[in-house]
Amino acid sequence: MRVLGVDPGLTRCGVAVVDGLPGRPCKLVHVEVVRSDPDMDLSLRLLKLDRRLAEVVAEHEPESAAVERVFSQHNVRTVMGTAQAGAVAILAAARAGLPVQMYTPSEVKAAVSGNGNADKAQVTAMVTKLLRLEVAPRPADAADALALAICHVWRGGARERLGAALRRAR
Amino acid sequence: MRVLGVDPGLTRCGVAVVDGLPGRPCKLVHVEVVRSDPDMDLSLRLLKLDRRLAEVVAEHEPESAAVERVFSQHNVRTVMGTAQAGAVAILAAARAGLPVQMYTPSEVKAAVSGNGNADKAQVTAMVTKLLRLEVAPRPADAADALALAICHVWRGGARERLGAALRRAR
Repeated sequence: MRVLGVDPGLTRCGVAVVDGLPGRPCKLVHVEVVRSDPDMDLSLRLLKLDRRLAEVVAEHEPESAAVERVFSQHNVRTVMGTAQAGAVAILAAARAGLPVQMYTPSEVKAAVSGNGNADKAQVTAMVTKLLRLEVAPRPADAADALALAICHVWRGGARERLGAALRRAR
Repeated sequence: MRVLGVDPGLTRCGVAVVDGLPGRPCKLVHVEVVRSDPDMDLSLRLLKLDRRLAEVVAEHEPESAAVERVFSQHNVRTVMGTAQAGAVAILAAARAGLPVQMYTPSEVKAAVSGNGNADKAQVTAMVTKLLRLEVAPRPADAADALALAICHVWRGGARERLGAALRRAR
């Protein structure tokens, strides 16, 4: 199961691809942070992110996508850019025919660390350990994108096991 | 000068195309409201809007786009969907190579009615008059998209006249 994880942001957008099966260690396929200058025209920033996401999807061929669900209680200026970058990520996945699942930050933190209130350092440490990386992914946006993809592998697997159990029970 | 105007929304997105020159009456080329069911998956809602916008751009070939600038002081749940739909509109225009300009609701109202605090009925009445329509465009999202396009024709024209005057002065 190959998953695209996106931690949306206009200035820094974490993009990760992970291979894995529920209950098994996941494997890092790709990770990067797509950056754009706050002084750039918004349409060109969204276009840059869209193009890079399309390239990553074409190159690594994920089967599904996980995108962080944006909340509105954050800083009001930031949240608009995050919502816009998130829309571009969701659309890029949908255009490529991938099913898209959204997760809250708490769900992702709980999935990778067992603690929905884990801080950034804990998430980065767990992602490094779970993927058996020699170097911790930096910046936090990269680690968050990996955590989203891992969360989706495990959650997706849980749903698939549930579906299989239900089919057997019928 | 042919302009695409988009009043972004997830449930109802106003889309208009208008021909015109600054200081002359504008002409309606196309207007519609793209709707999507709030029960639909978000990725499919964004995809539907993206596809329809691409079709409108391909069919009517506008030279530039005007999209309403989303503000965060509105209802918090609505504003996220509006920001997401706005990002899809901005991206659709950028993908087609169109320059995109954003306008606040007050700028648009002031441009078409002379009053930045005009209500929906006043905007609809002015759009109907300016485009010499026999029937008022409905719903308000359609009128707002037309108002955005008219605003952009006139503002763009003002900028071009200013540019021409500056060139002559040099």
